[in-house]
Amino acid sequence: MISIKNVLMLDGKRRDILIKGNIIEKIGRVSEKKDLVIEGKNMAAMPGLVNMHTHAAMTLFRGFADDMEFYKAWPERIWPAEARLSGRDVYAGTRLACLEMLRSGTTCFSDHYFFGGDIAKASRSMGMRAVVAELFIDGKSVSAGSVDEKAVLKNLENIKKEGGNLVTPAMGPHSVYTVSSEHLSWINDFSLKRNLLVHMHLAETRKENEDCVLKYGKRPVEVLNGMKFLNRNLSIAHAVWLTKGEIRVLAKNNVTVIHNPVSNMKLATGGVMPYSEMKKAGVNVTLGTDGCASNNNLDMFESMKIASLLQKSHLWDQTVLPAKEALEMATINAGRALGLKIGELREGMLADIILINLKRPELTPNLNLASNLVYSANGNCVDTVICDGKIVMQGRKVKGEEGIIEEAERTAERLHEKSGGG
Amino acid sequence: MISIKNVLMLDGKRRDILIKGNIIEKIGRVSEKKDLVIEGKNMAAMPGLVNMHTHAAMTLFRGFADDMEFYKAWPERIWPAEARLSGRDVYAGTRLACLEMLRSGTTCFSDHYFFGGDIAKASRSMGMRAVVAELFIDGKSVSAGSVDEKAVLKNLENIKKEGGNLVTPAMGPHSVYTVSSEHLSWINDFSLKRNLLVHMHLAETRKENEDCVLKYGKRPVEVLNGMKFLNRNLSIAHAVWLTKGEIRVLAKNNVTVIHNPVSNMKLATGGVMPYSEMKKAGVNVTLGTDGCASNNNLDMFESMKIASLLQKSHLWDQTVLPAKEALEMATINAGRALGLKIGELREGMLADIILINLKRPELTPNLNLASNLVYSANGNCVDTVICDGKIVMQGRKVKGEEGIIEEAERTAERLHEKSGGG
Repeated sequence: MISIKNVLMLDGKRRDILIKGNIIEKIGRVSEKKDLVIEGKNMAAMPGLVNMHTHAAMTLFRGFADDMEFYKAWPERIWPAEARLSGRDVYAGTRLACLEMLRSGTTCFSDHYFFGGDIAKASRSMGMRAVVAELFIDGKSVSAGSVDEKAVLKNLENIKKEGGNLVTPAMGPHSVYTVSSEHLSWINDFSLKRNLLVHMHLAETRKENEDCVLKYGKRPVEVLNGMKFLNRNLSIAHAVWLTKGEIRVLAKNNVTVIHNPVSNMKLATGGVMPYSEMKKAGVNVTLGTDGCASNNNLDMFESMKIASLLQKSHLWDQTVLPAKEALEMATINAGRALGLKIGELREGMLADIILINLKRPELTPNLNLASNLVYSANGNCVDTVICDGKIVMQGRKVKGEEGIIEEAERTAERLHEKSGGG
Repeated sequence: MISIKNVLMLDGKRRDILIKGNIIEKIGRVSEKKDLVIEGKNMAAMPGLVNMHTHAAMTLFRGFADDMEFYKAWPERIWPAEARLSGRDVYAGTRLACLEMLRSGTTCFSDHYFFGGDIAKASRSMGMRAVVAELFIDGKSVSAGSVDEKAVLKNLENIKKEGGNLVTPAMGPHSVYTVSSEHLSWINDFSLKRNLLVHMHLAETRKENEDCVLKYGKRPVEVLNGMKFLNRNLSIAHAVWLTKGEIRVLAKNNVTVIHNPVSNMKLATGGVMPYSEMKKAGVNVTLGTDGCASNNNLDMFESMKIASLLQKSHLWDQTVLPAKEALEMATINAGRALGLKIGELREGMLADIILINLKRPELTPNLNLASNLVYSANGNCVDTVICDGKIVMQGRKVKGEEGIIEEAERTAERLHEKSGGG
């Protein structure tokens, strides 16, 4: 049992938090004898942040294709390097990503990449929660003909086996422009039958919409709606280029939207995710960093701030996406999307808790905690990270940091040596 | 003498840096005997960042007026609190700001606030370089009638005396909408005669432009041009709402622009600073955080990233404001604007140097240092800060941190107790 004593919470009150196993047993006054007591006097407690869209191992491509046009950067730099990735590389890159995420207060990430078993293994080795969606791309991870059901099942089982109770396997069709409607249909039937989460890109760019209309005579949301693809197990990353009608369809079908403000801005995908319309329609909006080739970090504190700034700036309205809503996007809304008991500090929830060091200049004075967390803090304000009831960072120290960094450095060096880019 | 051994520089090469007194004596191979050797193996060296526009003591109002409309937030919250500020409060708030700035790699700031002597004293006490412009607002810091030349001179002398060789006194007319044309003319003559730097707000909002046209029949830049106010000693903060013609006038007169992307976005001032047009016209563009009521931190690394993201997003162009240019805005362009030998690591320049700890997950791999600094780092990546040849931070420790934070906490508490807001 761990107890956190006298810690500041988001409602401005100080309480004790008692953790038993991997569950928040009690919030209030704790007087029982505990194995481990954390003094919370100079700390604030909040739920661990949930990064709802990333390609964790792309840390290996950080800084590799910046300030270049997307349609040059990806085909010339990223894709050839990705083609050389092994499961072992993905393991090293994902461990680096987990280290960076833990150090910036993220306790759960929803990943979307190749070598799901290695992602799950990496996440578990770091004591981090993850939803691992194995990427489906026609002609790459899936043969041109039909999907090999046995192979898919084996993959899911492998993710489950490697990840243990910390990892949820999911389906990861890349997008409507890289997966055929036959394969999308197959994935849909398959995931509905097994109640699997589905994670895909949607409506990120204009080109994607135009290509979809040319191919199907319909916009992407309509295509998915036509094949009954839209349901509460689906999370779509980006969702920038949508009509009001499409937003209503997403809301009606309880689809979760994952906003990636830094990636959208850096990749200059144009437009701005229509947050106000989403909110009005009742869409569950969550937050992600995207991969490190498009951000280039995994700091969800930074993403919360930039999400809010982007809406304010775009709508000429200082009041839109206030701090409290940015926090909800990164916590409770994500818990709802993933069907996991995370994202809230409440008795009975999983003990994924981060402690913020309040004795830092950028958090002084502390007139408004939510505001300080979203507009002043960054991930370095996190002192302690508890995931699944276990302390994985304390005093900003994570076990094995140096080795993880060195292994990732070596892996990236080897990958890029062969590429000639840089 | 201090020598930094074998440190990575922005051109990708490793060198030694020798500091003698407050000057960079040599860059290359250093073999002489030094008093102090800093091992640079795991570090990158770059010029200390220059925050060209802030109101440092407004750290005391951090989180005090967020997610509210500007025309409510400032009159109801900020101005009444500002009216209660004493010189001692400004000293405490500025020391807190200096601590935050040093910890995020800023070695020089251009401040724009009341109680210049106390700002200078605070900055000097922290070993930080500053340009201190005492704010002029009609009816507040200046009487409605004429300016009291003796009082202004006394103030400048006080800034000089309190700041010593680390601080440059400057003139700080608030804006064209809060200072009469008579007073602006007076300030202009006064500063030209004494070769003083002038720091003011300009073209931040549409309202400011409209009000100016109503009052003067001309837009702000034209008003200033008409009174020969525009010259290389002038830096204007914001410069968002400009015409191409005005940009050409600014370029022709060697006026420096200070971009404050986070403040502009958070305060929803509308529009986006026309960087490409500025660049084409040859305007010297620098970077600031603005005060903590509008940002709400002083991290110039964050501001570099957001400056670049904002342009890319606005222009639907991934290549605009690349990392290298963001770094220049925060360093060499600022040195040029202030007429100080800072912003470049070159022999003969002042020794304002920061060392970046490269052994951090978010800076791994290091395929592109400029990219990592702008898109992946934040201020916490800074390990060591040298200002004016003296080490003011090492291993992220600044002398007296706790006391500075506690003093600022107490000051803010007292200020806000009386205000009833929060």
